Amino acid sequence: MPLKVIDWEKGKAKIIDQTKLPAEFKYLYLNDIKDMHKAIRTMQIRGAPALGVAAAFGVVLGIKNLKTNKFSVLKKKVNDSINYLMTSRPTAVNLFWALERMKEKCLMSSHLNVEKIKKLLLKEAIEILEEDRRVCKKIGDHGQALIKNKDIILTHCNAGGLATSEFGTALSCIYRAKAKGKKVKVYVDETRPLLQGSRLTAWELMKNNIETTVICDDMAASVMKKGLIDKIIVGADRIARNGDTANKIGTYNLAVLAKFHKVPFYIAAPISTFDFNIKSGKQIPIEQRSREEIIRGFGKLTAPENVKVYNPAFDVTPHGLITAIITEIGILQKPFTKSIQKLRK
Amino acid sequence: MPLKVIDWEKGKAKIIDQTKLPAEFKYLYLNDIKDMHKAIRTMQIRGAPALGVAAAFGVVLGIKNLKTNKFSVLKKKVNDSINYLMTSRPTAVNLFWALERMKEKCLMSSHLNVEKIKKLLLKEAIEILEEDRRVCKKIGDHGQALIKNKDIILTHCNAGGLATSEFGTALSCIYRAKAKGKKVKVYVDETRPLLQGSRLTAWELMKNNIETTVICDDMAASVMKKGLIDKIIVGADRIARNGDTANKIGTYNLAVLAKFHKVPFYIAAPISTFDFNIKSGKQIPIEQRSREEIIRGFGKLTAPENVKVYNPAFDVTPHGLITAIITEIGILQKPFTKSIQKLRK
Repeated sequence: MPLKVIDWEKGKAKIIDQTKLPAEFKYLYLNDIKDMHKAIRTMQIRGAPALGVAAAFGVVLGIKNLKTNKFSVLKKKVNDSINYLMTSRPTAVNLFWALERMKEKCLMSSHLNVEKIKKLLLKEAIEILEEDRRVCKKIGDHGQALIKNKDIILTHCNAGGLATSEFGTALSCIYRAKAKGKKVKVYVDETRPLLQGSRLTAWELMKNNIETTVICDDMAASVMKKGLIDKIIVGADRIARNGDTANKIGTYNLAVLAKFHKVPFYIAAPISTFDFNIKSGKQIPIEQRSREEIIRGFGKLTAPENVKVYNPAFDVTPHGLITAIITEIGILQKPFTKSIQKLRK
Repeated sequence: MPLKVIDWEKGKAKIIDQTKLPAEFKYLYLNDIKDMHKAIRTMQIRGAPALGVAAAFGVVLGIKNLKTNKFSVLKKKVNDSINYLMTSRPTAVNLFWALERMKEKCLMSSHLNVEKIKKLLLKEAIEILEEDRRVCKKIGDHGQALIKNKDIILTHCNAGGLATSEFGTALSCIYRAKAKGKKVKVYVDETRPLLQGSRLTAWELMKNNIETTVICDDMAASVMKKGLIDKIIVGADRIARNGDTANKIGTYNLAVLAKFHKVPFYIAAPISTFDFNIKSGKQIPIEQRSREEIIRGFGKLTAPENVKVYNPAFDVTPHGLITAIITEIGILQKPFTKSIQKLRK
């Protein structure tokens, strides 16, 4: 699936503008760290793994025009860039993980000259991108083993190629199952408020010739009750040490419904999504987004102008509702505290 | 709350065009049975009790211009009108209940002259309207007893004044609680695809000075997990003899989430919503609606043009998930088979 959501081209970060899909397919060329910050904040690029890559390229854009031969000046600029990019979105830990990695690379290169370090930082960002591609493919290879021929999978939001460098996480399992010759159908929650399910997931699944049915989020229980869903696979934005998982708002709804209907509920995510610093989901910061997304999400006013809204971008699914977690090194089983502990080197 | 959703004025049925709210408040004057059929089908008027009234006025419009003095000709026209209106929407039983009542009125008046019968049929339709007003107020009076001061109620779709002749069913409980001096806050599911929650319920609650917060449907579990919701009250489109309840799609989702979070889950509906002919929810026909509601619900394309969609207008909540059913004669407790049996005279 050669869908390059983010890439580096002629000194610029190139991204697909995901706010325009499915009506319009358009690339943006970002030449400035501010453009990248805005692209992340407005969700022109989104999806936890893709945000890691975007943040890394953001650092490169931040130091691109720096003229200095002093390491201390470069270091300050790198740190300023990182601090600025950290303010773009708070929940997906991959973003912080990638920024930390860029910081380390910079510090460990302090003995080299500035121009060389700048090149190494670009190389590191591209390495994060390439790694993500490999990792997503591996997630798919492990995850596809859970999928049987003729399975019907329900997914929420977009944990596909559009959320990562290439294959996706949850959708990678589906793509790899298909590559193995298994027939798979997918139901997609449209995923209000920003409709990443109907706009993005349905779009990329259909591009990959996978039979796709869009439902509104409030139809998921009905579809499960009819016995139509064999399993649910979703992505993640941050996973705590006990397996509690933050993902797009609505994921927790789905996990509760899955439990009631006895449908297996899987998370698919790279190890960069695990936050080993936090014990449980209670410590995950949840971004609150603009009221406009709810009251005027489709251009038209769909609620009273002055009504209160509650618009968290994510929810936390307690580990008890998760059947297993699919990663690039294999499938983590319960108890997650134990299996996640093993991921730490 | 003097919100007249439907009324009879100068030989025409007058309705609020609910597809235009909240951006525009507009009355429509319907002069022809075809206009009423269209108004019901396109949901310019909706809500189970209001559909009963609308159907009754539809019959009056159907015979309005009939010039005859033969009862057999009138009877045929009444039956044709009824059969035609029965094709407008299949799930809300109140529509069929009102049509049956108009048919009975016609038959029982066979000894009178045609002009007199036409007047009696108009009178009957207005009586259905007036009865609905009284019934909704009584539902509210019974239901408000379940609401404590400072309760926070979650509701789905619109079971308010806009769904009935005046007070509503679920919202009537809230209005009556407020009239008793209780402070109540309401969370409203926006209710995709047609957003009756954010467009209609939020609008009428705010008009009644009730603090209202709109959420997307996939946020309901999050809000319950935070302990923000004391109880859920929704309306109904058809209730089977065992208490299984068809209501707007997403109601069943909510009932499952309520069970998991131990939040009491109430149905509020007039007795005309009970279908004594059916034993369980399995026998309730579920209307499938247009794909356009999902892929282009707000004018903008929000899913791939050629994607499959699944768009049931209703779901069925099994009686086991319902705490109690609020009616005009009191609150029905479990076992519902018994308490519903008692409603039949």
